[in-house]
Amino acid sequence: MKTTLQRPRQWNSPFGPTKKGHVSNPLCRTSGTYVGRFDLETELNKTDVNGIRLGDELERIGYLGEMELGSRHMGAFFEAHIEQGPILEDEEKAIGIVRLGQGIRWYNIEVVGRPSHSGTTPMHLRKDAMLAASAIVTEMNAIAHRHENGLGTVGFMQVWPNSRNTIPGNVTFSADLRNPKPDVLLTMHEELLAFCKEIALDHGVDVNVDPFWYFAPVEFNASDDVKAATEKLGYSHMDIYAGAGHDACYMADLVPTGMIFTPCLNGISHNEAEYSSPEECAAGANVLLHAMLEASERIAKEHQ
Amino acid sequence: MKTTLQRPRQWNSPFGPTKKGHVSNPLCRTSGTYVGRFDLETELNKTDVNGIRLGDELERIGYLGEMELGSRHMGAFFEAHIEQGPILEDEEKAIGIVRLGQGIRWYNIEVVGRPSHSGTTPMHLRKDAMLAASAIVTEMNAIAHRHENGLGTVGFMQVWPNSRNTIPGNVTFSADLRNPKPDVLLTMHEELLAFCKEIALDHGVDVNVDPFWYFAPVEFNASDDVKAATEKLGYSHMDIYAGAGHDACYMADLVPTGMIFTPCLNGISHNEAEYSSPEECAAGANVLLHAMLEASERIAKEHQ
Repeated sequence: MKTTLQRPRQWNSPFGPTKKGHVSNPLCRTSGTYVGRFDLETELNKTDVNGIRLGDELERIGYLGEMELGSRHMGAFFEAHIEQGPILEDEEKAIGIVRLGQGIRWYNIEVVGRPSHSGTTPMHLRKDAMLAASAIVTEMNAIAHRHENGLGTVGFMQVWPNSRNTIPGNVTFSADLRNPKPDVLLTMHEELLAFCKEIALDHGVDVNVDPFWYFAPVEFNASDDVKAATEKLGYSHMDIYAGAGHDACYMADLVPTGMIFTPCLNGISHNEAEYSSPEECAAGANVLLHAMLEASERIAKEHQ
Repeated sequence: MKTTLQRPRQWNSPFGPTKKGHVSNPLCRTSGTYVGRFDLETELNKTDVNGIRLGDELERIGYLGEMELGSRHMGAFFEAHIEQGPILEDEEKAIGIVRLGQGIRWYNIEVVGRPSHSGTTPMHLRKDAMLAASAIVTEMNAIAHRHENGLGTVGFMQVWPNSRNTIPGNVTFSADLRNPKPDVLLTMHEELLAFCKEIALDHGVDVNVDPFWYFAPVEFNASDDVKAATEKLGYSHMDIYAGAGHDACYMADLVPTGMIFTPCLNGISHNEAEYSSPEECAAGANVLLHAMLEASERIAKEHQ
């Protein structure tokens, strides 16, 4: 039996592992489980691509604890993190005070046209799934630009039959819409659905949209503790949104929560090139410590 | 040693087999070699994905002849073929009299942007290779529509890293432009190159265009023999272009050539669903026979 750890090339393909019941996305499932958003048994039963069960591995390495979920007494929760984006670097600020975790809507979109020969099918008789998909990619970008703080991305695409001289019959791709305001994100969602319907009619193709995941925006209610600590320490700072998923986004369900961002070289993360300098990390750690001290004083006063 | 015949999933990927020296495209290499467009030894030395050499296989099955290339005495060359497109079906004609083999220009295009996080990279700081590629796909379609009888297709695309929450850093794709008129095809080519330059500037990405193949339009000078035969037999007919590559396109280098098209169900070819009815095939075969008779009579008269 082959036991080498294999990472498939498209390891987080939305049309690959998820369909086989593997871990569907890497966004902080453990904190989500701790606060009760996900079912503990379901999470422990998840397996990696080699069929290894999460619960078994936690037991093997001695990390499968007995404490009841959500039972630890906490007055506040703080998380320091590299920004994973280019804003602090671009604005030349040492610390980002994270006011909000933005909302996320994820989609799988499939365009079904008709595969036919690129040299013999006149333009007016085509049902070109690639052309329709490209129009949706372009519109994702336009939707993001129409709304303040909107983001729109198509990161994954698979083409069938993917042959130079065949008009694509099927194109599947991911869509990712984000906004810190839930009502704006809902409008962006509705614009995407309406555009997909329009494209289906215009191009004579089927467009199947699966809006399979929604993460509501989160407010970080202990942000003022982070701000007070940053100002006390004298670091340059700005308010910022968390664009990615973080443990703090779930922990905010239970207690006042704050996040501290440090600059991220070229905005690159989830990559070997991810980098915050030692000085930048030290600033983040100092703010983390002093935010906790601020919160402790505040909570002590509140209970006097 | 594994000897099973393997067809890679993307068997005619422009960025796969060609780079390793395998057969680069399936378009009638043998007739092209016969008329002297390709070098015989180069062709015989080509291998399939399992490393099996074409010359060795021809010898093994007894098909490696001794006759000199281009040496057979011919007065004309005729080829009957399924249309591989939907025009005859759409126009309800039994026979297509192929007047021209259209010109083809093939490209490999690579867009190099910057991979970054879809949730943390503001729209104005992105270098989104997918967005730039989609603009080129849309423009390929627009170029085709701007020119009479123009065709434009992107059939192949590969995205890197192809992850739902990463803005694509690299998108490679094929482009296929066709037109029966060489000057029009050249204009289409220049429009594509100019647009790619513009997109590179607009999106802050690199766009590398490799225009690696050009097939000049071909006139079929024995088309009148095909027309005379079709009218004598009483079949409905129309003049048509050959959109795909055919043996006749190369044989026209040597002798007057004609092509006969039969209808093609739903325009689908290179596919298990390709279909001409027995009656439609019989009509094509009858026209083929009578076109040869017409040509023989014509040539005999010319030599009287």
